[in-house]
Amino acid sequence: MADGVDVLAALDDVLIQRRGAQADESYVASLYARGLNKILEKVGEEATEVILAAKDNADGEDPDALVNEVADLWFHTLVLLASQDLSSSDVVACLNGRFGLSGHVEKASRTQQT
Amino acid sequence: MADGVDVLAALDDVLIQRRGAQADESYVASLYARGLNKILEKVGEEATEVILAAKDNADGEDPDALVNEVADLWFHTLVLLASQDLSSSDVVACLNGRFGLSGHVEKASRTQQT
Amino acid sequence: MADGVDVLAALDDVLIQRRGAQADESYVASLYARGLNKILEKVGEEATEVILAAKDNADGEDPDALVNEVADLWFHTLVLLASQDLSSSDVVACLNGRFGLSGHVEKASRTQQT
Amino acid sequence: MADGVDVLAALDDVLIQRRGAQADESYVASLYARGLNKILEKVGEEATEVILAAKDNADGEDPDALVNEVADLWFHTLVLLASQDLSSSDVVACLNGRFGLSGHVEKASRTQQT
Repeated sequence: MADGVDVLAALDDVLIQRRGAQADESYVASLYARGLNKILEKVGEEATEVILAAKDNADGEDPDALVNEVADLWFHTLVLLASQDLSSSDVVACLNGRFGLSGHVEKASRTQQT
Repeated sequence: MADGVDVLAALDDVLIQRRGAQADESYVASLYARGLNKILEKVGEEATEVILAAKDNADGEDPDALVNEVADLWFHTLVLLASQDLSSSDVVACLNGRFGLSGHVEKASRTQQT
Repeated sequence: MADGVDVLAALDDVLIQRRGAQADESYVASLYARGLNKILEKVGEEATEVILAAKDNADGEDPDALVNEVADLWFHTLVLLASQDLSSSDVVACLNGRFGLSGHVEKASRTQQT
Repeated sequence: MADGVDVLAALDDVLIQRRGAQADESYVASLYARGLNKILEKVGEEATEVILAAKDNADGEDPDALVNEVADLWFHTLVLLASQDLSSSDVVACLNGRFGLSGHVEKASRTQQT
């Protein structure tokens, strides 16, 4: 993956564009059209699938399936956020504030540049 | 603010360091010590709290609570990933591959520069 | 109507019979054929739907939907139990032991008879 | 367990009595006092614990733990129902109607009596 590429922010952009799309054009547009409960059902389903994939990877048998399910869960939380005029940047700011990561990030950034 | 992917990577670093810590030193170390089921119980709990916060924000009353719950959910999935020798970069690579975001990102990048 | 424990026991009988059925004959047989993870995904989905229906019934607007979702959740836990050679009677015995209900029940029974 | 004993109905009675109790007198009264979201968080937690116990019982290692977790889940759905002026009899009537179990139940009943 390219350096400095913010995949989450790019995904937010895609999700916001889809809000204007017709329901039959894309999976995301159809989720928006079906409403909040449908999006939340998907969040619940994906959380269950993460739990099952993690149990099935307890001895490291299938890490790819676990990564895939976590990606599905994150994706559906991004759809949820977009549906409520929020985005990944709000979540990242929250995590950043909570863990005081700016220092870590800046230092990591300097290390990469030199 | 540093971009989202960098913040998540910094958080990954913190979570990996905590794997060497004593259980009584930090919340994360105590989660690792209590094992996979305990981490997965937390993932399930946080998913439920996202759903409840989203219902309580259906008319935009409390977006901060929703952002906080999504941050909690992502955080516990990062703990889960770290516990299985995986990280946010695996999830981001998966989302990137799935949505072909590199193009979007490059284009957005060019737009910002000009 | 026959009492609740009897209805659940009758449902147990149906579920055990379906274990011998072909997957294309019934919904339950197809769940068994798709395996434990599929049954557990349904349990997770139905739990989410109970939560959403309860939030949507917070002011008593739609009690029937909530009852329906709880019935779905119980039903899928009965399928799960049957798939592991267990039944509602094990759960009822557990609740009975935990809450010491036999006394309550006998007393209620005497009251009704007199 | 005694014949014809309806443990679920007896449990409903207990749960309704607790609605009038002080929050510090019982676990159930404290759940009511903490409100709908708290009860639903417990439903979500217990659903996750059922899923984990079922995975841990995949080869029949620990059926008692699974039965215990299903009992916890049913118990918290009964608390939820009582909190919304509903009861197990509503759920049982729904299952009875859906599966047409009255015939099964009557027949089972006759068999036991003769």
